[in-house]
Amino acid sequence: MKSDRATYYAVIFSSQRSSDGEADYAKAADRMLELAQTQDGFLGVESTRGTDGFGITVSYWKSEDSIKKWKSHSEHLIAQELGRTRWYKSFKTRICKVEREYEFESLP
Amino acid sequence: MKSDRATYYAVIFSSQRSSDGEADYAKAADRMLELAQTQDGFLGVESTRGTDGFGITVSYWKSEDSIKKWKSHSEHLIAQELGRTRWYKSFKTRICKVEREYEFESLP
Repeated sequence: MKSDRATYYAVIFSSQRSSDGEADYAKAADRMLELAQTQDGFLGVESTRGTDGFGITVSYWKSEDSIKKWKSHSEHLIAQELGRTRWYKSFKTRICKVEREYEFESLP
Repeated sequence: MKSDRATYYAVIFSSQRSSDGEADYAKAADRMLELAQTQDGFLGVESTRGTDGFGITVSYWKSEDSIKKWKSHSEHLIAQELGRTRWYKSFKTRICKVEREYEFESLP
């Protein structure tokens, strides 16, 4: 099924967790998710992490402007700093324009 | 760090595994990864799946044309069909143009 949804954007955040601060991290990740959902232009998020500590979170946004605003949100800036100093060994962020999409759902 | 890499594309494949065919699935997933790496325009792949069976695989490509060719590769078509009939409850594929990126790596 092709979607005729208006143009939107995806932020692909790939990260390798350090072994530090699991409890802090889980709490902050939940809080960031909660906060992101209240931002203008937020459309949704998908996230998963394997047992090796490598994770991918993709958030979806109406515009590049909404992504920039979220990136500079004061509480998010604090989490980003803790991410760099504590929670992540490495990460990469890619801001992408979704060109087309299709999906599949099996019959129940 | 901003990258000045040429334009490239990301295919975000988000999927929910069914409980079927774990051994077949793992073997086919390995084979598809191996095969993708030999395709023209393939740049890389990141993949992870949580214990709940939800996974995200993002593959990176030089052009939309290279993505189309991979999608219609004969061996990949067979895997796609098995994906729909057997391995996945649901999935969504998004073809995206990477607009910008930045990354972080902690000091050793």
